[in-house]
Amino acid sequence: MERREFLKKTGVAAAAAVASTAVAAPAVLAQKKYRWKMVTTWPPNLPVLQVGAERFAKRVEEVSEGRMKIQVFAAGELVPALGVFDAVSQGTVECGSGAAYYWAGKVPAAQWFTSVPFGLNAQGINAWFYGGDGLKLWEEVYAPFNLIARPQGNSGVQMGGWFRKKMETIDDFKGLKMRIPGLGGKVIAKAGGTVVLLPVGDIFTSLERGVIDATEWLGPMHDLRMGFYKAAQYYYYPGWHEPGTCLEVMFNKKKYDELPADLKGIIDMCAMETNLWSLSMFEAGNGAALQELITKHKVELIRFPDPLLDELRKMAKETMEEEAEKDPVSRKVHESFKKFKEQVGVWGSVSENAYYNVIADKYSLKG
Amino acid sequence: MERREFLKKTGVAAAAAVASTAVAAPAVLAQKKYRWKMVTTWPPNLPVLQVGAERFAKRVEEVSEGRMKIQVFAAGELVPALGVFDAVSQGTVECGSGAAYYWAGKVPAAQWFTSVPFGLNAQGINAWFYGGDGLKLWEEVYAPFNLIARPQGNSGVQMGGWFRKKMETIDDFKGLKMRIPGLGGKVIAKAGGTVVLLPVGDIFTSLERGVIDATEWLGPMHDLRMGFYKAAQYYYYPGWHEPGTCLEVMFNKKKYDELPADLKGIIDMCAMETNLWSLSMFEAGNGAALQELITKHKVELIRFPDPLLDELRKMAKETMEEEAEKDPVSRKVHESFKKFKEQVGVWGSVSENAYYNVIADKYSLKG
Repeated sequence: MERREFLKKTGVAAAAAVASTAVAAPAVLAQKKYRWKMVTTWPPNLPVLQVGAERFAKRVEEVSEGRMKIQVFAAGELVPALGVFDAVSQGTVECGSGAAYYWAGKVPAAQWFTSVPFGLNAQGINAWFYGGDGLKLWEEVYAPFNLIARPQGNSGVQMGGWFRKKMETIDDFKGLKMRIPGLGGKVIAKAGGTVVLLPVGDIFTSLERGVIDATEWLGPMHDLRMGFYKAAQYYYYPGWHEPGTCLEVMFNKKKYDELPADLKGIIDMCAMETNLWSLSMFEAGNGAALQELITKHKVELIRFPDPLLDELRKMAKETMEEEAEKDPVSRKVHESFKKFKEQVGVWGSVSENAYYNVIADKYSLKG
Repeated sequence: MERREFLKKTGVAAAAAVASTAVAAPAVLAQKKYRWKMVTTWPPNLPVLQVGAERFAKRVEEVSEGRMKIQVFAAGELVPALGVFDAVSQGTVECGSGAAYYWAGKVPAAQWFTSVPFGLNAQGINAWFYGGDGLKLWEEVYAPFNLIARPQGNSGVQMGGWFRKKMETIDDFKGLKMRIPGLGGKVIAKAGGTVVLLPVGDIFTSLERGVIDATEWLGPMHDLRMGFYKAAQYYYYPGWHEPGTCLEVMFNKKKYDELPADLKGIIDMCAMETNLWSLSMFEAGNGAALQELITKHKVELIRFPDPLLDELRKMAKETMEEEAEKDPVSRKVHESFKKFKEQVGVWGSVSENAYYNVIADKYSLKG
């Protein structure tokens, strides 16, 4: 009989019986149940992201035999999307799920843990987290806020965005009104664009009506769902601004530290499981959605021209240096990130990049 | 106090006290401990592979509060490397760790679950497993052998191998004696090479003495450790023959099915954690080792010429069709793999491939 079943069947009487002898009392303590709340930055039912946060909670419950239950609230259900950091930091709720770059205003160094323009892709940033200093630095950056974070997902390379006009040179960004958050937005601003931030529900309409000229979102799976192909003609790649966006799960550190070692282990393990699950869902789902966008909706995919990318890259480099100047810990994280990028750079060029190029003739889009 | 600590401190007396009341007895049952053995196909201490199997066991013990302990045996310690499949299938031991293509002689369909020449890379094969039919098919293929498998690691794109002469055209494979296992070996044989299989301990000496002309192994981290740079001059890339080699953990199905749901969940979760951990270790470690090979040991890296790769690719395609003919389930797995490769192919060309090409100018090796 499993413990869960035993507790269900025997209930309070058994607990009382066990508690009545001094030596057995700790057994009851060991069965302590944790009932946590998780708030997220995502709309309800958002595939992979909100769904991933819910999957995380479900898996933790399963493998802890119900000792730990996490109730998940989408953005706005308990706190607004951008209130997640404070809610978890202050202990209003025990945990949250989102992306670290949302907290850039409070914690500039957090941005490196999401994605850096022209930075590491999913395989690279995971290697930095688990096989380099990434995760340790993240813990250092969040500690003053009573938070501890774990990677919980990765989008892979995103798409470059939907544009209502062709982007031929860097000058085409001048005066361009684009919805693009985070570091990517800072680069676009440097290129002369106007960065517009909009509630999720307003993006499609704004693009359709020409209130904005362009928007990035995620990748084919999520972009198809938003219907952007009905509002903008050109779908650009690659997503230089977010080449491997890491999603986060964060815990109130005091609450996390109070957990017994096994539950801590389960949480950590489940975050890593969800991280790989998420990247796999993006890869499979984006593949299928891109086929649909191309064949059914006749979407035109265009690669950003190389000279334009070169200019963006110079500006991205400047942007990252500016961000690194904001405080000593940002500088420290920036240097670690850069060094790790060098460590895996040449290796990537002879492994994944060389291999992708070998199979590319079969898959490359014409033109 | 944690349960583990409680049990340690109070020991038998406490267990007896609890067992002396009828209602509490099931609690003792619920604490049933599992003591399993795992045999692997790897030499002792082999980084990431044997170390990963040991890490898996350690993590399972941690998060199960010691309810499940797995004792890990390297190749030859309990059964020989190639005896792992039978030992787990027959229930001599409860689980094993290795790579599915080692069982090709018994189970031709198993080969697709490791790596296919010119097939899916790590990101792709993981997406097939977790976001496609891959894992379900693997369960189907192993069921007649009373086995259930999970991905437990991935090497990423491997290196193409160490050669004592330059490989300029496909004809250079004629008469070439190469140590290369699995499907890659079948392709090399088709190209006129002589495939040599050697015990791990004999590879270096055979290469150094010219008993073989070439060998593939893994990637820079493991190749550096083997000292191949002292025995062969040319280090070729990319590893077309194993573009994302999946490692496996397998369980005797009867033993697995006997586990309570939470321990099953822990095992599955831990396998997925180890899978991502392993790829991250390979990525970080290969990056560092390649730097050392290039700068310290002056190793010359060469890309296989495109026409040579084109020929190998045609032969690989023929090879896979021949393998798929071996039984109906191989055909079924082959078709699923091919279809999934199409699903993620164009997506990969505009995401990872396009992105790698954008950053390539910084990292590409000259020449």
